[in-house]
Amino acid sequence: MEDNIYSESKLREFTEAVFLKMGCSAEDAEKATDVLLKADLRGIDSHGVARLTGYVRLWEAGRINPTPEVTIVHETPSTAVIDGDGGLGLIVAIKAMEIAMKKAEQVGTGWVSVKNSNHFGIAGYHAMLAAEKDMVGMAMTNASPLVAPTFATERMLGTNPIAVAIPTAKQPMFVADMATTTAANGKLEILQRQEKDAPVGWIQNKEGNNSTNPFELKDGGALLPLGSDREHGSHKGYALGSIVDIFSAVFSGANYGPWAPPFVSFLPLAKDPVGEGLGHFLGAMRIDAFRPAEEFKHHMDNWISRFRDTKAVEGKTVLIPGDPEREAEAKRKTDGIPLNPKVVADLNEVAEKMGLSLL
Amino acid sequence: MEDNIYSESKLREFTEAVFLKMGCSAEDAEKATDVLLKADLRGIDSHGVARLTGYVRLWEAGRINPTPEVTIVHETPSTAVIDGDGGLGLIVAIKAMEIAMKKAEQVGTGWVSVKNSNHFGIAGYHAMLAAEKDMVGMAMTNASPLVAPTFATERMLGTNPIAVAIPTAKQPMFVADMATTTAANGKLEILQRQEKDAPVGWIQNKEGNNSTNPFELKDGGALLPLGSDREHGSHKGYALGSIVDIFSAVFSGANYGPWAPPFVSFLPLAKDPVGEGLGHFLGAMRIDAFRPAEEFKHHMDNWISRFRDTKAVEGKTVLIPGDPEREAEAKRKTDGIPLNPKVVADLNEVAEKMGLSLL
Repeated sequence: MEDNIYSESKLREFTEAVFLKMGCSAEDAEKATDVLLKADLRGIDSHGVARLTGYVRLWEAGRINPTPEVTIVHETPSTAVIDGDGGLGLIVAIKAMEIAMKKAEQVGTGWVSVKNSNHFGIAGYHAMLAAEKDMVGMAMTNASPLVAPTFATERMLGTNPIAVAIPTAKQPMFVADMATTTAANGKLEILQRQEKDAPVGWIQNKEGNNSTNPFELKDGGALLPLGSDREHGSHKGYALGSIVDIFSAVFSGANYGPWAPPFVSFLPLAKDPVGEGLGHFLGAMRIDAFRPAEEFKHHMDNWISRFRDTKAVEGKTVLIPGDPEREAEAKRKTDGIPLNPKVVADLNEVAEKMGLSLL
Repeated sequence: MEDNIYSESKLREFTEAVFLKMGCSAEDAEKATDVLLKADLRGIDSHGVARLTGYVRLWEAGRINPTPEVTIVHETPSTAVIDGDGGLGLIVAIKAMEIAMKKAEQVGTGWVSVKNSNHFGIAGYHAMLAAEKDMVGMAMTNASPLVAPTFATERMLGTNPIAVAIPTAKQPMFVADMATTTAANGKLEILQRQEKDAPVGWIQNKEGNNSTNPFELKDGGALLPLGSDREHGSHKGYALGSIVDIFSAVFSGANYGPWAPPFVSFLPLAKDPVGEGLGHFLGAMRIDAFRPAEEFKHHMDNWISRFRDTKAVEGKTVLIPGDPEREAEAKRKTDGIPLNPKVVADLNEVAEKMGLSLL
């Protein structure tokens, strides 16, 4: 079945209505919608409105508080731990980044670790908030355990993404936004819908052997850390995922490792939690805390144009992190956003139940 | 030929004598020696005394200032840029970390970007300085361009390592110290000495095709970013290496990308430098800037023991970042440090020229 195409405004209207029905304030509904739509516009379909029904089901299961009171638990001039009060990570992370940016304004950098939160959407969204204000933005989060450490047969870590956004002058912003696995879970979901095999090196079966079956995780399999196997550096991907887990959850007092709460509402929470909810880590560094902003941005422009001019393999181009997403955004702003029919059916089921107009 | 075994104290004595002959102060010679010996003890042979002759040759070429005046160029309460005055990176990075830790004491975190420096040894050494003081330590550096971005045939980045050290209570410290490439250059040097092939996915030839020849870099080849190829996430390794380059050199005003000065003295410096020397980035975050130190360390212990107990592939064990290096250190402290005969010959050549006793 072919994808249906929707305009950005149509999807915004629909998504905001759903968040309002959940009981979010008008301001929060608008912000949460903006995070999801940014993912759809940037071509990260797994993290856009396709996730909306997941948030609704978590809310139905009482695992999301639509009207959280986000509070600072502890702080120093450059750090804070905040309690997300079980709110939507989409909203909580924006508030956390606002605090990080305020601290950066005051003392050069700001670092906020968050507990008691939920899935925060694309990490890149939060990092870019800082880069728009002449700061380097960083965002990480832990997530449902789907990843086996090197040599493990057990799922211990989430796909734990790291995003870094760096301001520029004339060149487009540098935006790296990556799962610390060889392939993000969203890539697997695409193969599942298409009923295609995965490349060797993305997943393993429950015994820890290579698998190309995109449904392998349903049978005890796991995603592999960036590097795929020990010989190709999977211990590095595992270490990166661990660092994200520790910064997000051990700094803050959230659940870490295998205790991280699952995104899907049909899986139970851990019976022996080691913290509260999911964790995030947000950072902002003012570029003029290091050197004059114009000088920094001039050199970033030079960095980008030199890397863009790198001699390439025949028929290929060397890209700058963020290039593919920016190109997708330009295209989808005008051409609209394609949604898989299964995603549309799922969204309409929720809309019907909530008494909202269908997509 | 078999390796010769040397005691730690013998190698310390030898190395310190060489640094003193270069004109380093007694304090600096001792510190620089400590960085190199830590690498040898921890089994990272490529970054230990095997590098000493490289530093000597850079000094002979006038590219290392043995008596640098390290100065703060710019600062805020949580950040600084320092000018390494062309000194040994081994020393300059220690000073930078001291500044980062002092800022962390005052405002929670400290972040120092360094220009006009040289190769700083193992990144892990500098990160561990902070972890010994109840801070999370981070250390990165850019380096001689040996790595091709995804789809490139040109060497644009160094192996640009990232180290993160995290304090614990009873468990040994968590220490991740990794090149952002599939394999570090040191791994290649080992294969060169043994005249063995490299696995597919570590290097490419000058056309950008897979190569297993460990000497391929001499013929225009390149190391590959972590992930090896696009399908296995090499764009992520490329992005990580880029972030290290930007934090180390664009923040500070050092040379970035292909302009980074080569470690080997026989290669010329770039004719059109974009900054001064090599760059580093050091960070320190006080754990009690987030939550009480004992609480944090208790949860780190729990994190580590849970991950150590992960169900493993038959015959394998799930390791914690830092385990192999710590085990090597315990062994080599008592059994001594093996040095390849080619390394010993190289060191003795320098000793002879300097009028020092041979190893």
